[in-house]
Amino acid sequence: MDVYISGVGMTKFGRSKESLEKMMTEAASSALEEAHLEKVEAIYLGVMNAEEFVGDSNFATLLADTLGLTGTPSTRVETASSTGAGAFETAFYAVASGHMKHVLVLAGEKMTHLSTAKTTRILSEVIDRSERRYGATMPALAAMIAQKYAREFNLSPMKLEDILARVAIKNHSNGSLNPYAQFRKIITKEDYLKSQMVAFPLRLYDCAPITDGASSIILTSQPTPIRVSGIGHATDTAAVRHRTSFTSFNSTKEAAQKAYTMAQLNPSDIQFAEVHDAFTLFEIIGTEDLGFFPPGEGWKALEEGITHLQGRLPINPSGGLKARGHPVGASGLAQLVEIVYQLKGKAGKERQLKRAEVGLASSIGGLGNNNLVTILERSDRTQIIKEGWRPDYHPDIRVSQKKPAPPPSEGVGILKTFTTLYATPEGFRSPLTLGLVETETGEMVMACNPDYHFPQKLKMEKKVCLKTREGIYVFEKLTPWNRMKRWFKGSSKSG
Amino acid sequence: MDVYISGVGMTKFGRSKESLEKMMTEAASSALEEAHLEKVEAIYLGVMNAEEFVGDSNFATLLADTLGLTGTPSTRVETASSTGAGAFETAFYAVASGHMKHVLVLAGEKMTHLSTAKTTRILSEVIDRSERRYGATMPALAAMIAQKYAREFNLSPMKLEDILARVAIKNHSNGSLNPYAQFRKIITKEDYLKSQMVAFPLRLYDCAPITDGASSIILTSQPTPIRVSGIGHATDTAAVRHRTSFTSFNSTKEAAQKAYTMAQLNPSDIQFAEVHDAFTLFEIIGTEDLGFFPPGEGWKALEEGITHLQGRLPINPSGGLKARGHPVGASGLAQLVEIVYQLKGKAGKERQLKRAEVGLASSIGGLGNNNLVTILERSDRTQIIKEGWRPDYHPDIRVSQKKPAPPPSEGVGILKTFTTLYATPEGFRSPLTLGLVETETGEMVMACNPDYHFPQKLKMEKKVCLKTREGIYVFEKLTPWNRMKRWFKGSSKSG
Repeated sequence: MDVYISGVGMTKFGRSKESLEKMMTEAASSALEEAHLEKVEAIYLGVMNAEEFVGDSNFATLLADTLGLTGTPSTRVETASSTGAGAFETAFYAVASGHMKHVLVLAGEKMTHLSTAKTTRILSEVIDRSERRYGATMPALAAMIAQKYAREFNLSPMKLEDILARVAIKNHSNGSLNPYAQFRKIITKEDYLKSQMVAFPLRLYDCAPITDGASSIILTSQPTPIRVSGIGHATDTAAVRHRTSFTSFNSTKEAAQKAYTMAQLNPSDIQFAEVHDAFTLFEIIGTEDLGFFPPGEGWKALEEGITHLQGRLPINPSGGLKARGHPVGASGLAQLVEIVYQLKGKAGKERQLKRAEVGLASSIGGLGNNNLVTILERSDRTQIIKEGWRPDYHPDIRVSQKKPAPPPSEGVGILKTFTTLYATPEGFRSPLTLGLVETETGEMVMACNPDYHFPQKLKMEKKVCLKTREGIYVFEKLTPWNRMKRWFKGSSKSG
Repeated sequence: MDVYISGVGMTKFGRSKESLEKMMTEAASSALEEAHLEKVEAIYLGVMNAEEFVGDSNFATLLADTLGLTGTPSTRVETASSTGAGAFETAFYAVASGHMKHVLVLAGEKMTHLSTAKTTRILSEVIDRSERRYGATMPALAAMIAQKYAREFNLSPMKLEDILARVAIKNHSNGSLNPYAQFRKIITKEDYLKSQMVAFPLRLYDCAPITDGASSIILTSQPTPIRVSGIGHATDTAAVRHRTSFTSFNSTKEAAQKAYTMAQLNPSDIQFAEVHDAFTLFEIIGTEDLGFFPPGEGWKALEEGITHLQGRLPINPSGGLKARGHPVGASGLAQLVEIVYQLKGKAGKERQLKRAEVGLASSIGGLGNNNLVTILERSDRTQIIKEGWRPDYHPDIRVSQKKPAPPPSEGVGILKTFTTLYATPEGFRSPLTLGLVETETGEMVMACNPDYHFPQKLKMEKKVCLKTREGIYVFEKLTPWNRMKRWFKGSSKSG
């Protein structure tokens, strides 16, 4: 059974004084009003971590009651930072089953009331325990991916910096036109360069902000102008170091393949997209994973203006997570709200795209391991004859299998990527240098570098000394005067 | 599209040294093996609060990876203590939509590693904030319902005690025959009476234990011997005091009505049931809400042996939450695993029921506000002609609407029910007497009683003094010598 959208709503994203349930009620009310509904048959509620952010469990029930829909079945859905998209997918199947006619999807998160250190700790819980215990945060892992991307595609540090700045500048520019965005100011390259380093090479302006907000969509089995034409969902290894690729996300590629197949569309059919840019480089990687551009070439499209608001394939017309803001549970659904605005020609004079009949949203859960791709179309879109349709999207998908933890090994390894983290979670000193090291037995391990004052001396693909200390891997530059004996002194002085 | 069950699995419930993901892997492996599957198209994962119980977010991804199913779409579903049933329902629609052939439902919780006080606090987060701040716990609210039930149906304190003991004794007896049960010892009435008071009139043996465990079911669109014939889901007010009834759960009645309608079955067609007995009285109320027995008469069926293992309508042949144990996320799915065991004649010589072609499970989320009812049948069951089928289940459903918080009021109120809580959450003194008081304006408020040494002097339906103190309602017996002036002294002495 086909599934359609009959209403959408969202709050302004940003710092809010309202409670989470009040924000969600605001978003839901707009959607219900647009759909001319007072009741629905079920509520699918996306909140990533109400338990720790607002201290509540049983949130699905609370919301049904707060909305005045007491009695209505209400289910909470969670897929880490793609939760909004996960709730949408879950609701899609409920309607597609024919058991329900009208379903409310509602997603939100409240984060700004906590300290940044606490928020960072809560967000870090999506990271595999074995990597989290090194002090790895989401920006730290994203930074290691950025380093690897630059290395793999031969981008100089300055070139990488320029690419990242361009994403931030473009998305802030788009966000400045979006009344729902957290940041409505344009930024310059100078602003970008002045912003503080969070995890080398990622700056504050490379990271989506901490945000409060809610978004909502009504799904229905009755035809409306907007049809859900494709949904795909895939996971990847919990630990980043177990991946087969550090410069693309298999989970996005698999999810995209399923969505394109369901929609019988190819990447070239997509006219615009919202692409999860929790970190600037993720937008570039996303446009490659989605088949819009070849691997390593997404940044060229950005340079050429293709992904700009007036380009051939606008990416994140909303401003993306970067500028619209990133209430973790809400973002995946807010992307779809933006697509509906565009498809209905209601994105506002300045932001409205000319070609807006087919849009795609790509949402990332965790560090790229619970991803969803959703395609929405105008129902009146001229359909090309689909007889014998064959996809032209054939991504290189190599899903990794979780490997058993390697035995502690010492000796020489190869530094595959690294970062120096300046915004460390509670309990970790700053700066903290972390790397992924390939052992002599071919295993990939996370390791920290105690010589934290000189991270710039580290080079990828170079041999390093690998030791274990209290079950933690430690790596250091392999030099003629081996400084191993200094380690313990050095770390206790700073501890 | 019809949905069938092709495999089930569960761990032994109890205190486990294994991690949550290892227990869940064990449960999933059995189910996958029985279904002869190595892959599924999606995983629906029920965990109520992995964030606070085990400190992990993004648990759906971790499990897909741990199971060796890296890449498989994986979604976490949560509906408080009915989470296992909620995950099952969500997966049901995914298969019913025709988009998926084989889906893994997996539910679990790990709780025993934390202190009871901490576990109590975490579990209390499912309670509405406005009631939680009085120190109300799940047993406290259940105890108030038990008091009200006894009052409404004219049961003396001794009679109520006898009924509750009978539920505990029956379920422990059933559990003693269940190799998966946490408690495998039978208990006597003497044991019951010796068990400590948790929240008057509920004793330790009235409350389901704190448990580790996992359960799993494979749903498929391909016909198998077990068919999912009915599912219903409903919520109720977040706050207990906003309910229209304190002696039944509207959410169970609504969910049951939907499930019976989908299955085209009546309560009299059900041959056995698993009924959420987190507190002994909830089993009695459940059998009434499900239409098995008239309101206020469920306990008679128990006395007459109707709900015993060898009776006409066995309730909780597994031992129920009481004896099998209650890993909050897993219980709703474990109930369904038991039903499948019974329907397949695989419940073991001592526990196997003779009539086992149609079974029902009723799961309660929160304090009766996110409930699901699921009906499973043998596919080879002789179908009665359904032409012109009409339900004979017409429960009295009166869903409440959330009322605005009443302004603080003082004066005289009526004490509708109360309890004295001995196992208080962190930060509250013990014992703590709580009550629901109807104000002169007809509002129901929660209130605490500072004269905590003499709770037995309190009587329901009697007038009490109602005051507010720092935004908290306080009630006291209305006596000629008004003791209001003693309040502040009394409470500071004990504080």
